[in-house]
Amino acid sequence: MAGDHGVEPRLQLGLVHGLVHGLVHGLVDGVVDGILDSHPDLFPDRSVCNSLPRMTAARKPPLLEHFAAGGWVAPDDEGHPLLDAATGEEVARFSDTSPDVAAMAHHARAVGGPALRALTFPERAGLLKALGAHLTAHAEELHELSLRTGATRADGTGDIEGGIGTLFAAGSVGTRELPDDTVVLDGPPVPLGRGGTFLGQHLFASRTGVMVQVNAFNFPVWGVLEKLGPGLLAGLPQIVKPAPQTAYVTERLVRLVLASGILPEGALQLHVGSPAGLLDALDVGDHVAFTGSSRTGALLRTHDAVVRRGVTLGVEADSLNCSVLGPDVAPGDPEWDLFVRGVAAEMTGKAGQKCTAIRRAIVPARRADEVVEAISARLSRATVGHPAAEGVRMGALVSLAQREAVREAVARLRTHADLAYGDPSSVEVTGADAERGAFMSPVLLRAHDDASEPHDVEPFGPVSTVMTYSSVEEAVALAARGRGSLAASVVTHDEVVARDLVRGLAPLHGRVLVLDRDDAGESTGHGAPLPTLVHGGPGRAGGGEEMGGVRGVLHLMQRTAVQGSPDVLTAVTGRWTPGSRRRTDDVHPFRKPLARLRVGDTIASASRTVTPEDIAHFADFTGDTFYAHTDAAAAAANPLFGGIVAHGYLVVSLAAGLFVDPDPGPVLANFGVDHLRFLTPVRAGDAIAVTLTVKQVTPRPRADYGEVRWDAVVTNSAGEPVATYDVLTLVAKDWPPADR
Amino acid sequence: MAGDHGVEPRLQLGLVHGLVHGLVHGLVDGVVDGILDSHPDLFPDRSVCNSLPRMTAARKPPLLEHFAAGGWVAPDDEGHPLLDAATGEEVARFSDTSPDVAAMAHHARAVGGPALRALTFPERAGLLKALGAHLTAHAEELHELSLRTGATRADGTGDIEGGIGTLFAAGSVGTRELPDDTVVLDGPPVPLGRGGTFLGQHLFASRTGVMVQVNAFNFPVWGVLEKLGPGLLAGLPQIVKPAPQTAYVTERLVRLVLASGILPEGALQLHVGSPAGLLDALDVGDHVAFTGSSRTGALLRTHDAVVRRGVTLGVEADSLNCSVLGPDVAPGDPEWDLFVRGVAAEMTGKAGQKCTAIRRAIVPARRADEVVEAISARLSRATVGHPAAEGVRMGALVSLAQREAVREAVARLRTHADLAYGDPSSVEVTGADAERGAFMSPVLLRAHDDASEPHDVEPFGPVSTVMTYSSVEEAVALAARGRGSLAASVVTHDEVVARDLVRGLAPLHGRVLVLDRDDAGESTGHGAPLPTLVHGGPGRAGGGEEMGGVRGVLHLMQRTAVQGSPDVLTAVTGRWTPGSRRRTDDVHPFRKPLARLRVGDTIASASRTVTPEDIAHFADFTGDTFYAHTDAAAAAANPLFGGIVAHGYLVVSLAAGLFVDPDPGPVLANFGVDHLRFLTPVRAGDAIAVTLTVKQVTPRPRADYGEVRWDAVVTNSAGEPVATYDVLTLVAKDWPPADR
Repeated sequence: MAGDHGVEPRLQLGLVHGLVHGLVHGLVDGVVDGILDSHPDLFPDRSVCNSLPRMTAARKPPLLEHFAAGGWVAPDDEGHPLLDAATGEEVARFSDTSPDVAAMAHHARAVGGPALRALTFPERAGLLKALGAHLTAHAEELHELSLRTGATRADGTGDIEGGIGTLFAAGSVGTRELPDDTVVLDGPPVPLGRGGTFLGQHLFASRTGVMVQVNAFNFPVWGVLEKLGPGLLAGLPQIVKPAPQTAYVTERLVRLVLASGILPEGALQLHVGSPAGLLDALDVGDHVAFTGSSRTGALLRTHDAVVRRGVTLGVEADSLNCSVLGPDVAPGDPEWDLFVRGVAAEMTGKAGQKCTAIRRAIVPARRADEVVEAISARLSRATVGHPAAEGVRMGALVSLAQREAVREAVARLRTHADLAYGDPSSVEVTGADAERGAFMSPVLLRAHDDASEPHDVEPFGPVSTVMTYSSVEEAVALAARGRGSLAASVVTHDEVVARDLVRGLAPLHGRVLVLDRDDAGESTGHGAPLPTLVHGGPGRAGGGEEMGGVRGVLHLMQRTAVQGSPDVLTAVTGRWTPGSRRRTDDVHPFRKPLARLRVGDTIASASRTVTPEDIAHFADFTGDTFYAHTDAAAAAANPLFGGIVAHGYLVVSLAAGLFVDPDPGPVLANFGVDHLRFLTPVRAGDAIAVTLTVKQVTPRPRADYGEVRWDAVVTNSAGEPVATYDVLTLVAKDWPPADR
Repeated sequence: MAGDHGVEPRLQLGLVHGLVHGLVHGLVDGVVDGILDSHPDLFPDRSVCNSLPRMTAARKPPLLEHFAAGGWVAPDDEGHPLLDAATGEEVARFSDTSPDVAAMAHHARAVGGPALRALTFPERAGLLKALGAHLTAHAEELHELSLRTGATRADGTGDIEGGIGTLFAAGSVGTRELPDDTVVLDGPPVPLGRGGTFLGQHLFASRTGVMVQVNAFNFPVWGVLEKLGPGLLAGLPQIVKPAPQTAYVTERLVRLVLASGILPEGALQLHVGSPAGLLDALDVGDHVAFTGSSRTGALLRTHDAVVRRGVTLGVEADSLNCSVLGPDVAPGDPEWDLFVRGVAAEMTGKAGQKCTAIRRAIVPARRADEVVEAISARLSRATVGHPAAEGVRMGALVSLAQREAVREAVARLRTHADLAYGDPSSVEVTGADAERGAFMSPVLLRAHDDASEPHDVEPFGPVSTVMTYSSVEEAVALAARGRGSLAASVVTHDEVVARDLVRGLAPLHGRVLVLDRDDAGESTGHGAPLPTLVHGGPGRAGGGEEMGGVRGVLHLMQRTAVQGSPDVLTAVTGRWTPGSRRRTDDVHPFRKPLARLRVGDTIASASRTVTPEDIAHFADFTGDTFYAHTDAAAAAANPLFGGIVAHGYLVVSLAAGLFVDPDPGPVLANFGVDHLRFLTPVRAGDAIAVTLTVKQVTPRPRADYGEVRWDAVVTNSAGEPVATYDVLTLVAKDWPPADR
C-alpha cells in the first residue's frame, strides 16, 4: 500500500526555495545575472534598459491611477514627480489626493469578499498559482521598472521573483494544508461533559471585511504579494496602498494582475494617493496590514478605527536587527567568513533598505578589530553605481530625501560611535552621475562602550554598527536593547552556544538564523523572510506576524469556539465528530466512489476471537518476540499488562482484515494511519471488532481520486475501545473509472 | 500492548467540567445549595452569614493593602469605603493612591520571572494544581466575602469554584499538552532546501517581562485565576489590579495564595489602588490582560506603553451578546424552554453583570409575542433580594452607582424599545432593605423595528431586549450589528439552521453555543466561558483571546522561527530533527532506562526480504485479502501499484520484528503510533530495514516511567523510505526497577 502524499510538499517548497535561494546567493556572492533586454513597448517614450536609463521629453510621464470600485480612476490634479533613484529623471507622477476609500471598501465588502468566500480554500489557491504563473511570464516588465527605484537586478529578483514565490507558496498552503471547505478546524473536538453529548470545536472563519495593505517603498512587488496570497486565501478582498516613492512598480503589478482576469471582481483595488483618511471608512471585520516605520505604526495604532471600531492592525516595522558572532569563531574558520560576508551583504543588498538588515554586529571584544577590518575589506569591493551598470553591487537609495535621512542618522550614531569604513557624504559612483542619483557609500561604525544610540537610531540605508560583548549573556543583553527585532542571526559552530543564544534571543525576535558551515550551502541568509516561516517580531518590530505557511492565513481569520452536540458539530464542520450519527446501508462504504461517500458512512465489522496461537504465530512470523507476547511469566511481571497480550500491530492487522472489502473498487490504497493509540490490552480469548466511519472526504484537485479519512475504533468483547486511529485512504472519484 | 495515555485527560476535564456544570445548572435551575455557616474567626468584628449580614461598629473595616516587591504595603491615606451591595454597610476601605508600580515591575522581572522560567512546564503545572487544592480548602473564606458583593451562592460558585477549576485545567494543560521543557515547539521542522541541511522550526519562548492583570469587578476570583494559570504557565510573573468595588475579595484571594507559600517569590503581586500610571513602568516584553468596558479598553490601547513601547495588550470587553431562537422552534418544543430559560438565567445570574450575558434575544417575528410572554413569566418567578436570603434567585448589583448606570442605559434603550417586563426603578426585595441595597428588577424590553440602540447600548445589569427576524440571513445581520461579541447562542433542533447560523455568526463571535435537546443535559450554558475553549471576541468584545487550553498559554509567549542545520535544531529544541546525528553504541536503546536514553540514540536494524509467501500468508492470516495483495491481475490494474504489494500493516509488523529487543527491559509498552505514511510500495523480493531513533523523551511526573517518541524509517533495498512514522513507548525511569 502506498500513497504519494507527504512527498510533494517538499518538491513544491523546493521550487519556491530555489527562487529565494538563488536571489540571496546572488546577493551574498555578488552575482548579478546580467541586464535585461528592454521592453520598449511598455514605455514607448523612453528606453529604460540601456546601461544608463534616460527619458526623452517626448511625452509627459504617466500620472499613477487608482483602481477603485471596478475601474481605473485618474486623480484630479497633476501630481508630483517620482524620480529615478539613480538618474533623477522623472519616472511617473503621484497625486496626493485620495480616491473614494469608502466606495472602495464598500465595493470590496459587497462584491469581492462574497466572491472570494464562495470559493473553497483549494479554489482560492488555484487563483494564486495561476496568478504566480501569469506574473512569472510578465516579470521582466516589473524588473524594468524596479531598476529605476535604485535596486540592482539581484535586488529586483528578491522583490519580484521572491514575491511571486510567496504566491506559489500560499497556493501550496491552500491546496495542501487547508481543507476543501471555507472554514478551518483548529484542533480536535474538546469533550465538555462526561456523557459525550456536549463538545467544543474551535474553527477559523473568514471575516466579512476588507484588508488594506499599507506598504513600504522598498519591496513594491514582494510587499504586495506576500500579503495578497494569505489575504485572499483567508477570504479577504484587498486594497493596496503602496508608498509613493516606488508606487509605479506596484501600479504596474496591479495592472498585470487585473489584466490577467484571474481574480474575481472586487478582490483587488489600488490606492495610489495620500494615506489621509485611509482608515476612516474601516470598521470591525476589516484588517490593516502595515509595513513601514515604527513611527507610522504608532500613528495607525491610535487611529479611532483601531482603538474604537475593532479594526485589526498588523504592524511589521523595520527594526535594529543584529547578527552575533559566536565566541568560538576565529579568523580562518568557515563561520568567520560567513559572518563577515553576511554583514556586508546585508549592508549593501537593496542599499541596506531592508527592514531585516543587520544594523548591529555583536562580536566578541577580543575579535572586534579583526572583524571591523574584515568587513571593511569586503565592503571596499562593493562597487556602488547605477543599478544596471556592469559590475555594480550596490545601487542607489530610493531618493535623495532618503539618503539625507540616512546621513542624519549616521550623524547621530557618530556621537557615540567611530567611523570605521566609508564616508557618508561621498562615494565613488560607477555608471551614473553622482550628483543626481541617491548614491551613498556603505558605512561601518564601531560603537563606544555602552553607547545607546546604536540600539535606538535606525539608519535605513547601508549602515551597520559593530559592538562588543564578553559573555553570551552580555550578547543576549545587547541584542535585547534593540527592544524587539524582526530577525537575528547567530554565527557559530558550537551547539551549546547556538542553543544558549537562540533561546536567549527568541523572546525578542521573530526569526533567529543559526549560520554555520553545515547549513551555509543552503542557507537563505539573515535578511530573507521565507513564506513558510513567520515574518514579524515583537516590540519595535511591530508585534505582528505574517506568512509562516498556514499561520499567515489563520492570523487573518476569526477563531471561534463552537459548542454543541456531536451531530451539530458534524453538521457545522463537515467532519464526522465522534459520538455523532453513523450511517449504515446495504453497500459497503469501500464500494462507494468519492462522490457517493458521505461523512458518517460506517462499516461495523463482524468480530474475531484472538487465540493464543494467533499471538504466538504473529510473534514467530514477524520476529516481534517481545516478552509481553511470548513469555507468560515475564509478561505477568509487566506493570501494565500482567500477562500475555496481543501485539498492537496484530490488533490493527486483524482489524483491517475485518473491515476490508477485498475486490477491486474505488478504494485504491491505504496511504497512512494517524493517531493510533492502544487503550486496553487485548488478550487471548478476546473477540475484537472494528467500526470504521467516514470522517472527512477531501477531493484532490486535478486528480481522479481524493483522500478519505476514516475513524477506526477497535473494541473488545466488553465493548471497550482497545485501539483508536484514523485510517487514510485514496478513493477514486468515479467507479468504475469513467475512461474504462 | 497498551498504554493509559489519552484516557486521563477526559477524566481530568470531567472534574473541571463538573464544577462549572454544577454551577451553571445551579443558575439555570435556580438551585442554590444553601447558605453557608459563618466563619466568625475570619472577620472577628462582624458576622457575615446570618440571613442578613450586618456589621458591628466595634472596629474600623480594613484598608486594603498592596502586596508589592515582597511585602504588604498599606496606603498612606485612609481610603474610601467599599459598601456591602445588599446592605450598604462598609466592608473594607480602598485607597486611590498607587503603590510603586515601577518597583513592583522590577521585582517581578528580576525575581519572579527568572524563578518561574527556571521551572519546566510540568513543574509550573504542579504549582497550579497545588494552588487549586489549597484554594479549594479555603473556598469558604472567599464565599463569605463574595456574598457581600451582591452575588448569590450560585453566583459565587461560578466565581470561586469556577476560578479554581481554571487552575486545575491550566495544570492539566501544563502536564499533558506542554513539553518537559521551557520552550514549546510549534509544528514540525520546515524544509528550507533540497539538500536537507537547512531547516526551520517554529517555537514559542517565554517573554522576560511581567503580566499585569486589570480586572473587572464582577468576577473577583475567577477573573484573577483564569489569567493566573495560563500566565504562570507561560513564565510570566503577575501583578493583579482588581476593580475597586470587589477588591476585598481579590485581596483575600491573594492573601490565601501567598500564605500557601506555593508560588515562588515575585510571581504574584497585588495592586489595590488607582490605575493611574499603571502602565507607565511597562516596557517591551510586558503584557497587560484587561477585562472590563470597551471604553477603558480604548484608553489602554492608546497608552504610550502599548503604542510606542511594544507592551502587548489583551482586551476582553463586555459585549452585546445575542441568543438566536431558530425558526424551527415552536412553543412546546424542548428548545423553546431551553431558549426561554437561557435568556432568563443570563438576565438574573450575577444580576446580569456578566460580560457574556444575553443582551439581545433574536427571535422569529411570528414568535415574538409568545417569547416575550414566556420569558416574562419565567422572570416573574425570580425572587430578588439579599444574596444569602432563602429563596433568592437574584442578588444585588454591585453598587448603587452601578444600578444608576444600568437605569440610565435602560432609559436610552426605551427611546426605541418598549418595556415588556419589570420596572427599572422599583422591585420587591426579599430579606434586605430595598433602600440601602443596589437591587433592581430584571427588565425585558422589546425593540422597535430597526432600532439601533439595542445594538449599541449595553446595560450591565439584568436587562435584555427582544428583537425579531424573518430569515436566517436577517438573524445573522442583526447579530452582526453588535459589532463583535464574546458569545452567541443558537437554539434550534435543525442541523441546517445550526450550520448556517453558526457559520454566519462565527466571524463576529469568540464562542457560539448550539443548544438543543441533545446537549442540554450537559450544556454549560450561554454565559459560561470554559478553560478548554477560547474566551474573547472580535470588535467590541476587545479582540482578545484567553484560555482555550494550550492556546491561552501560547498567546502569552513569543513565537520565533529558528533556522539552522538539523544538528543545530536538535540542540536548540531538545527534539531529534530528521537529518541530524544518530548515535549508535553497543547497547540496544531498548536496554536503556529513561534516564540513560539520549535524543539521537539509534538502532539500525538488519534487513529482511519480503517474500511472496509472506504477503500471501499475511493476507490469509489476517483476513486482509485486498486485491492489491492477492490478485496479480487486479493489482496490476491499480493505478498506484501496478502489481502485488505488501500490506502496509505487514511492513510495520515486520519492522517491529526487526527493531524489537525481546527480553524484559526498561521498554514497557508501545502505546501508539503517529503520522504513519506509506511512501513507496513494498513488493515481494524487496529487503526492508528499519532505523529507529529517539526523538523525544518525556518523563511523566509522579510515575516511574516516561514517554519516548521514536522516529522510525523503513527503507527498501534501494535505500528509499517506504514508510515513516513515530513509535510511542513507555520506558521505565530505572532498570532494573529500584524496588526490585
